Amino acid sequence: MGSKGIVKSGTDIEGGVVRLAEVVQALSSRIRIELIGNPDLEIHGLSTLEAAGPGELSFLSQSRYLAKLAASRAACVILSASERDAGVARGCCLVVEDPYYCFALVTQWWKARLRPEPEGFVHASAFIDPTARIASNVSIGPFVCVEAGAVIESRASVGAHCVIGRDAVVGSATRLGPHVTLGERCRIGERCVVHAGAVFGADGFGFAPHAGHWVKIEQLGAVLIGNDVEIGANTCIDRGALLDTVIEDGVKIDNLVQIGHNVRIGKHSALAGCSGVAGSAVIGAHCTVGGGAVVLGHLSLADHVHVSAASVVTRSISKPGHYSGLFPIDDNAAWEKNAASLKQLHVLRDRLKQIEKWMASSLEKS
Amino acid sequence: MGSKGIVKSGTDIEGGVVRLAEVVQALSSRIRIELIGNPDLEIHGLSTLEAAGPGELSFLSQSRYLAKLAASRAACVILSASERDAGVARGCCLVVEDPYYCFALVTQWWKARLRPEPEGFVHASAFIDPTARIASNVSIGPFVCVEAGAVIESRASVGAHCVIGRDAVVGSATRLGPHVTLGERCRIGERCVVHAGAVFGADGFGFAPHAGHWVKIEQLGAVLIGNDVEIGANTCIDRGALLDTVIEDGVKIDNLVQIGHNVRIGKHSALAGCSGVAGSAVIGAHCTVGGGAVVLGHLSLADHVHVSAASVVTRSISKPGHYSGLFPIDDNAAWEKNAASLKQLHVLRDRLKQIEKWMASSLEKS
Amino acid sequence: MGSKGIVKSGTDIEGGVVRLAEVVQALSSRIRIELIGNPDLEIHGLSTLEAAGPGELSFLSQSRYLAKLAASRAACVILSASERDAGVARGCCLVVEDPYYCFALVTQWWKARLRPEPEGFVHASAFIDPTARIASNVSIGPFVCVEAGAVIESRASVGAHCVIGRDAVVGSATRLGPHVTLGERCRIGERCVVHAGAVFGADGFGFAPHAGHWVKIEQLGAVLIGNDVEIGANTCIDRGALLDTVIEDGVKIDNLVQIGHNVRIGKHSALAGCSGVAGSAVIGAHCTVGGGAVVLGHLSLADHVHVSAASVVTRSISKPGHYSGLFPIDDNAAWEKNAASLKQLHVLRDRLKQIEKWMASSLEKS
Repeated sequence: MGSKGIVKSGTDIEGGVVRLAEVVQALSSRIRIELIGNPDLEIHGLSTLEAAGPGELSFLSQSRYLAKLAASRAACVILSASERDAGVARGCCLVVEDPYYCFALVTQWWKARLRPEPEGFVHASAFIDPTARIASNVSIGPFVCVEAGAVIESRASVGAHCVIGRDAVVGSATRLGPHVTLGERCRIGERCVVHAGAVFGADGFGFAPHAGHWVKIEQLGAVLIGNDVEIGANTCIDRGALLDTVIEDGVKIDNLVQIGHNVRIGKHSALAGCSGVAGSAVIGAHCTVGGGAVVLGHLSLADHVHVSAASVVTRSISKPGHYSGLFPIDDNAAWEKNAASLKQLHVLRDRLKQIEKWMASSLEKS
Repeated sequence: MGSKGIVKSGTDIEGGVVRLAEVVQALSSRIRIELIGNPDLEIHGLSTLEAAGPGELSFLSQSRYLAKLAASRAACVILSASERDAGVARGCCLVVEDPYYCFALVTQWWKARLRPEPEGFVHASAFIDPTARIASNVSIGPFVCVEAGAVIESRASVGAHCVIGRDAVVGSATRLGPHVTLGERCRIGERCVVHAGAVFGADGFGFAPHAGHWVKIEQLGAVLIGNDVEIGANTCIDRGALLDTVIEDGVKIDNLVQIGHNVRIGKHSALAGCSGVAGSAVIGAHCTVGGGAVVLGHLSLADHVHVSAASVVTRSISKPGHYSGLFPIDDNAAWEKNAASLKQLHVLRDRLKQIEKWMASSLEKS
Repeated sequence: MGSKGIVKSGTDIEGGVVRLAEVVQALSSRIRIELIGNPDLEIHGLSTLEAAGPGELSFLSQSRYLAKLAASRAACVILSASERDAGVARGCCLVVEDPYYCFALVTQWWKARLRPEPEGFVHASAFIDPTARIASNVSIGPFVCVEAGAVIESRASVGAHCVIGRDAVVGSATRLGPHVTLGERCRIGERCVVHAGAVFGADGFGFAPHAGHWVKIEQLGAVLIGNDVEIGANTCIDRGALLDTVIEDGVKIDNLVQIGHNVRIGKHSALAGCSGVAGSAVIGAHCTVGGGAVVLGHLSLADHVHVSAASVVTRSISKPGHYSGLFPIDDNAAWEKNAASLKQLHVLRDRLKQIEKWMASSLEKS
């Protein structure tokens, strides 16, 4: 396999060829596009500047990649007005206000064209409780289990092996991948995307210590997810203890993320893979949490707080901004010396103070 | 959704209203309760002090939340003798020795009353090998797979899509959520709770390096889980290489936790979400491991060791106590300066020593 | 349970007894073995030096465990020529060049003998699309779902509840545990082992920010996995955005690991549990990444780079070697003092500079 190098299986597939004018046409209701070059140019795939072949459409998101533009073999490149001259010099291009946003729209159009979502079938093997309410044009995959009182709204798609618990609700046009668990009474809104293995509504981690044992606090809340939310594979969002765990509209959560009970995450915040938010933390709107970062319990983060990867938020943050806290990586020998010194850091500080005192008294004398 | 605020779906549900005296009656076989106020008061939900409405029962766990008590609209509050006067001043209350423990018992009673566990059905779609032994009053959900020789003991509940491997054992009154995998020969004890997607008995990560390749060491042990254990969603506990991975009685493990092969975790220890315990580590009894913390392989932790969130245990700990090791978070600019200095810390230390030497010789001269 | 101590369920099972000569015979086509002792010795299990009982075969991997050798009750011990004398002094032994490698081979032989892989059955409950191509001697477990155009090659084994997406490929002799999701167009090579709940081909985490919202970039690539790869339970490998995410031959990935879109991991690298590799990172061949470590996006690591557990790779590494970056654990009180000092470290550095200046000028004067 190694010898084959990177394979492009994604875009260059059956029925793929379109005229450039069709792409422009498809997007023109959303954004302004200036086409420079031949509208009859055939596009048969999307790619990066480096990997693009002669029939492919690519994009230049930032001016610092200008050198890649010149070298690219792409048939056509989406770029902004400030890169217009460089684009024209190279050949065919689409000039737009925000090339990255434009490219996102192109990927959506491309996928919808080549891989339209299946619609309106319920697999014969699915188990659907007679009291569940299933809108008429949903898709329900093999071995799905929909329990009593659950609701699947119109155009929702429920992947193979999903479990939709009692009285749970899947909103309109929401797509659940395979093996998703939506627990009893949990609700997910409209136009959401949930990837395989995600678990909504497992019990929050709540126990009262008593006589050397942990006594379970039954978790009586639920999980409430807004509209346009995306949740990654094997991510877990626990139900609240008494109230609900709430994920607001437009939030994006990556794979293998843990969201504890009673957490609230504000609109349009994004959490990268392997991050964790402990119980009862409240994250504002438009925040970002980097991969592997941890937010401890009962804290609040203001809107527009950005936490670097692998950093641990140990106190509430009331001011928008960018926060970090991770040990810089180094070669192991250097790290060992610094780590050893770090364990004596407060002693070093005290020694420094001593010297400063002495220096001060010396200066006084002199 | 944002406009609706926090929704209380958990407790305030059908058939919910009870008289306060019924609550007291239900708990009186377990703990001593003094009821102050009207025993006929109607309770239709449980809540926090802040969120409680007029018909709800709440609790005051610690005296530092006294201000919340006064402001609460709760119908009745569970509190301790030391807060008795404040409670009486506010109105109806239940005085107990340990309010948090009492509240835990209330949640259990409440849940059992409103959402009794289903009992004694095997879903028609389940596949059960004819050599498996299924006690007569268990619950087995849709699409469950029970392999040859497996045992499901009395009153156990096996959620939809679980896979119970060959010769595996699910103990009496244990409840498995959906999509749980209990591997071949693994055993889980009595009264355990396992959440969706947990995996017991995947192979431990064991390979012998040989000629630039990794050669698999087949993992021949199993996973052995005691009684009264709770395991979170998508948590993984690997089978031992030669012996067994052992989780002792009363252990509580949160979501997305990784437990490597041959690990042993002592009674009543608790591990928070996203933590990891590497192969052959031994954790004592009554320990706690914070969220995202890592215990490296082959270490041992004494009983009553408490590891802070996101800390990495790199050496065995023989003394009970509280241990931490995480980089303090700061605004990014400050962090960058400190991180850069940290990479030179051992040099700073050496420079400090130089100055001290000079100071010492100066002092000698003077 | 605690009173029973460690249980050995793994090896000492039905049909287990073999003559030592049979073990030697089985391995002799792979490695050179010198048998010292009685070839008719009965072996009925494999174990560690400490836990081995009188009928068990064990191994001594490193000379620093020599003390354990003398104390072991094992019937026979695999060891290297340099430990030959100690082995002979103790009794029966097998002398080989690389005892750990030899032991790995023994575990493989032992497992194949006692727990042969099932072959050539398709469970009646499986749903297999008529356009899928299933080789004749594969095993397909209960409730498996194989979608249109998928290919299952010869001797592959697909565990209960797996979902094999449209046009996906499972290579020859590859074994998938239960609940594995192999997404549309994703491919896994030959002789791979995948544990329960692993997800291949969920969407990469890609969004274009636009007007305060996140706009989805459809992920059009796939996941491509080489031969002889092992992937742990609940691990997630995302599909590429435009190109493919690639895991090369011989790579071993532990449980609960996150691999972002467009990542490439070179041959024979190994990643321990809870680690994460962010999008578009490229990891070389023969690398190791410790448990809980994070590699940030768009970085490259040269071949033979070893990253310690819980370290965060924040820059590309072009030189083979061992790299670390984690805060040393300490008792909490000491940690607090050092962490507080750390937040002032750059100030300490500046103060130190001031003193040095003064010292330099003092020395000049004197």
